[in-house]
Amino acid sequence: MMHSNGRKRVVITNVSPLIEGGRYPAKATINEALEISADIFSDGHDSIAACILYKHSGDENWLEIPMEPGVNDRWRAVLKPGSTGFYSVRVQAWVDHFTTWKKGLGKKYEAGQDVTVELQIGADLLENASGSFADAENSLLLKWAGVFRNGNNVPSAVLLALSDEVSSILYAYREDDLVSVYPETLLIEAERKKASYSTWYELFPRSAASEPGKHGTFADVKNLLPRIAKMGFDVLYLSPIHPIGEMKRKGKNNSLTPGPDDPGSPWAIGNRAGGHKAIHPQLGTLADFKDLVSEAGKFDIEIAMDIAYQCAPDHPYVSEHPEWFKWRPDGSVQYAENPPKKYEDILPINFETEDWEALWGELKSVIEYWVGQGVRIFRIDNPHTKAFAFWEWMIREVRKKNPEILFLAEAFTRPRVMERLAKAGFNQSYTYFTWRNTKYEIEEYVRELTAPEMRYSFRPNFWPNTPDILPPFLSWGGENAHILRLVLAATLSSSYGIYGPVYEFCVNTPHHGKEEYTDNEKYEIKHWDWNQYTRIKEIITRVNTIRKQNPALQSTYNVEFAETSNDQIICYGKSDPDSGNRLIVAVNLDPFNTQGAHVRVPLWKLSISPGTPYIVRDLLSGSRYRWQDEWNYIQLNPFQMPAHIFRIEQ
Amino acid sequence: MMHSNGRKRVVITNVSPLIEGGRYPAKATINEALEISADIFSDGHDSIAACILYKHSGDENWLEIPMEPGVNDRWRAVLKPGSTGFYSVRVQAWVDHFTTWKKGLGKKYEAGQDVTVELQIGADLLENASGSFADAENSLLLKWAGVFRNGNNVPSAVLLALSDEVSSILYAYREDDLVSVYPETLLIEAERKKASYSTWYELFPRSAASEPGKHGTFADVKNLLPRIAKMGFDVLYLSPIHPIGEMKRKGKNNSLTPGPDDPGSPWAIGNRAGGHKAIHPQLGTLADFKDLVSEAGKFDIEIAMDIAYQCAPDHPYVSEHPEWFKWRPDGSVQYAENPPKKYEDILPINFETEDWEALWGELKSVIEYWVGQGVRIFRIDNPHTKAFAFWEWMIREVRKKNPEILFLAEAFTRPRVMERLAKAGFNQSYTYFTWRNTKYEIEEYVRELTAPEMRYSFRPNFWPNTPDILPPFLSWGGENAHILRLVLAATLSSSYGIYGPVYEFCVNTPHHGKEEYTDNEKYEIKHWDWNQYTRIKEIITRVNTIRKQNPALQSTYNVEFAETSNDQIICYGKSDPDSGNRLIVAVNLDPFNTQGAHVRVPLWKLSISPGTPYIVRDLLSGSRYRWQDEWNYIQLNPFQMPAHIFRIEQ
Repeated sequence: MMHSNGRKRVVITNVSPLIEGGRYPAKATINEALEISADIFSDGHDSIAACILYKHSGDENWLEIPMEPGVNDRWRAVLKPGSTGFYSVRVQAWVDHFTTWKKGLGKKYEAGQDVTVELQIGADLLENASGSFADAENSLLLKWAGVFRNGNNVPSAVLLALSDEVSSILYAYREDDLVSVYPETLLIEAERKKASYSTWYELFPRSAASEPGKHGTFADVKNLLPRIAKMGFDVLYLSPIHPIGEMKRKGKNNSLTPGPDDPGSPWAIGNRAGGHKAIHPQLGTLADFKDLVSEAGKFDIEIAMDIAYQCAPDHPYVSEHPEWFKWRPDGSVQYAENPPKKYEDILPINFETEDWEALWGELKSVIEYWVGQGVRIFRIDNPHTKAFAFWEWMIREVRKKNPEILFLAEAFTRPRVMERLAKAGFNQSYTYFTWRNTKYEIEEYVRELTAPEMRYSFRPNFWPNTPDILPPFLSWGGENAHILRLVLAATLSSSYGIYGPVYEFCVNTPHHGKEEYTDNEKYEIKHWDWNQYTRIKEIITRVNTIRKQNPALQSTYNVEFAETSNDQIICYGKSDPDSGNRLIVAVNLDPFNTQGAHVRVPLWKLSISPGTPYIVRDLLSGSRYRWQDEWNYIQLNPFQMPAHIFRIEQ
Repeated sequence: MMHSNGRKRVVITNVSPLIEGGRYPAKATINEALEISADIFSDGHDSIAACILYKHSGDENWLEIPMEPGVNDRWRAVLKPGSTGFYSVRVQAWVDHFTTWKKGLGKKYEAGQDVTVELQIGADLLENASGSFADAENSLLLKWAGVFRNGNNVPSAVLLALSDEVSSILYAYREDDLVSVYPETLLIEAERKKASYSTWYELFPRSAASEPGKHGTFADVKNLLPRIAKMGFDVLYLSPIHPIGEMKRKGKNNSLTPGPDDPGSPWAIGNRAGGHKAIHPQLGTLADFKDLVSEAGKFDIEIAMDIAYQCAPDHPYVSEHPEWFKWRPDGSVQYAENPPKKYEDILPINFETEDWEALWGELKSVIEYWVGQGVRIFRIDNPHTKAFAFWEWMIREVRKKNPEILFLAEAFTRPRVMERLAKAGFNQSYTYFTWRNTKYEIEEYVRELTAPEMRYSFRPNFWPNTPDILPPFLSWGGENAHILRLVLAATLSSSYGIYGPVYEFCVNTPHHGKEEYTDNEKYEIKHWDWNQYTRIKEIITRVNTIRKQNPALQSTYNVEFAETSNDQIICYGKSDPDSGNRLIVAVNLDPFNTQGAHVRVPLWKLSISPGTPYIVRDLLSGSRYRWQDEWNYIQLNPFQMPAHIFRIEQ
């Protein structure tokens, strides 16, 4: 078996971003630069040229962008997707005989050698190429070939040969059977900005009532919208709003012996009132829900819905589709486990069922139903306990029709599993940030998240707490810890969120020494005094405003960690080249003591000239400092403000 | 489009070694362990199992090796290829319901829970599985199922369930439509040991005459075989042996104005006496050459032939196949360039010729012709100036029939180009070692060569010098430099070579300050006094003997660099787990001064117990030292011996 066309000499390899050989799309953001790169080279010493061809799935024609060479045979092109949805990208390269010839001609002419034969070769080149062009360019090429051939005026012929005018026409000339085409098509998914930049507030709607002792409703949540918007959040994520199972219902603190008034966990979904497409009657009607979604829109807030594909024992699926569950010889279904947690009130779905096609269809229809009611963001509960193949199919199908739909994966599990869910389509993912407290841990983890292997597939969303997780650092460190963790989340990751009332009121009592809240809101209705003053609330509001005003905080991938002389102080630069916005963030990781450190500003990465003073303005305190060169000193008292967010003003 | 079978829950990804998505084979060595690994995981918390299936291209059936899990969902199997040639490897994995059940049963039983229902489930599992087995195993499974089901003696039923006997039979049970198969087939090329462990001596046969002023012959080379064998070399590489062009022949020192007796460069191949399949008449006949090859075999030396696909202007190809060259309007062909070197005496072949299929066929036939004469190793001159696609095709075709044939790529060019040639099939490659002199440079480079990206495709061959390259360190550092560079090459890389007489007689005068030898043997015949005593010759002999006796030096990938307190001393451990052979090598990089250093022995990597003294014996000097713990002191006088090669003797 001989090579199909042995004359193609250029090699294209190590193309990026190519996720799992092109099986999954690389994530991009609309109107933001995406770098496409490849190792491209040929045998010998000829010049080569390369380009990318790209096409939105809705377009007919391929468009072309030339690639530029960098060091070590790495070529690059920048694609700024103009629409959301799927793009295909191909890479092509070829030996560029015209440029090879032009460079040789230039060198020989400069060295004073006779270039008559070179000019003849150039004339041949242009004449051969001319046939591929339409009239105007064809006659231009033939005219130029004439200049090279007659040789009356060698200097002006050489000038013409080296001109951009000739190059720019010749660039389009390729002998098709000498062009190498990279065999894989890169798949790119361009997402709306919210996929990469979002600020989440989580609450339990049933705890939203203004009066103690009452069950909250969608109308109560609506009343909270101005407050949430003022604090700077743009996604309001509600715990599940479906009917709650009555069989095996849990009581307070996850007890197996509930009282008659215990409301149960909203994640134990379904009872005789309905399942995943129904609404818990005490929250309101479908109309109330749609009203909330639409009212939130007026505050630029999107409602994120929690989808937990699991069933209380009295969910209608259990009797209607017994084949979707794995039954034991004693007629029971093994309840769900997420070690060390046990969920006695929910039955897992058996994704190995022979009826899997009907199951997949039904689960997808749940998403489609709520999309129909105006929901655009879904937070998916424990996706790592459901089949990967299902997510891959479902998310792709939904987003083909509605590319604006976003999915957040709530998987706190092993790294390879979390990475795979992101590749399979989840737009955002929860992370290990929740447990990364020291400077070393945070830097290592953020470097891992922003490395090439992950940056095009896994979009982190940093949560300092969730209803399931009260990290020891928050119980131990009190309000100062809550503040510093919030600043870290909000400035390291362009998407972050808090389980809101508990966080802003610094509730932090663990349950029997576990990493869990005691008297957890999952099992009981709470009442919050939404009007009380807290220092942390003011700071959250300020930080979210800073995020809005500083594009450097709207990307996760532009972080540059700075050396510091004290491990209790973490410091990093962030910059946005398009707007010129440049920040230096420093956080005191010690919630109790004032800490000082010399920090080494990454001048080069922040485009600061060495030797020239520069002004840094703290966007939290308003103070201005005159800094110079790399090493500068800071000091942070956590009882005043555990962080600086400096804007560089030159 | 729905997923083809949505019930397959296990994910297999990031499979290694997979070179360019399976397009190129990964290199392995016969009878040596090759690790096949992959990330393998499922949703949820079920147990999983995985295996590799492998098959030699000459075999009918696939064989299976179970994979074992490591940290972070990485699974591994070890394959020891029993034959040379191409193997295919596939990876499979599945949810292992039996093991999931067994683990759950064990935990519940230990916790004192009632396991009656669990045992029923186990009985069902075994009964379902039994249908897939032949009679003996089938009845065994049914018998065991009966024990689980009757429940008279729960403790003994549980013991049975947890026994290896049951597991080992159940391992073979899989529901085919639940087994995930990795879509790509890994291609492995198992090579003979010489591919990875070889010791090269290069000479110009025309300089092998015992009398000054005479043209050397194959018979003269034959007389040198006992000497070369005694020095421990097992590959004798000859400069090209073909007729040398008479047109545009070069004179001494690359001059364009040769005298009538100048022999020309052996790389300017071809004249009226013939081309790449002919022999330069002054060297002898084909029979003489075959006699040399066969005589060398008696000394366990293989003759490596130089193949330079380029033509002197009077090579028969030029008149017989003018379409294989690129002609200029003035009737000339542009001579070859390898900047900054110019080869006015050779014409490059045009791999873009439309007659490429005939060209490829003829070039391959050159190799086949010499294989027919008994040559098994080819050193390919400047492969980076010939099309990659040609090498890929040619080498694969040759090795399919003759897997014992080895190709060494003489490409000193950019990293991506050198890497690609290795992937395309070259078994060994020249490297940048020739210019890596400091501790930092050497360590960085060896780390790069042994990293996962390169270790399965690029087999380095370290050369301290070549006829084209006299590194400044050798001109400046004299004999001591020659010795220390030889020890580095011979102990860092399992394959190394020297351009022999020049190296062992420490010829080191550069030509006009360039990195080249003056009065280069490429353009004139030399006479060597083969019988003179030199210190370096004794050391080369000793080092090659040490390589033969210590398997740890027969791999390049087992190096572990040690911290040293002085940058003039480089130190590294090497070990061979199969034989237990463990070495510590230390080299003084300063050719003029005695240097001392504390070196930090990598105890753990060398299986040395902390706190226990151990004996290191210097295989160069014979001295023994008693060492303890990590940090130990050494001192090296380059005028005595610039290196230690310690064997650890506990």
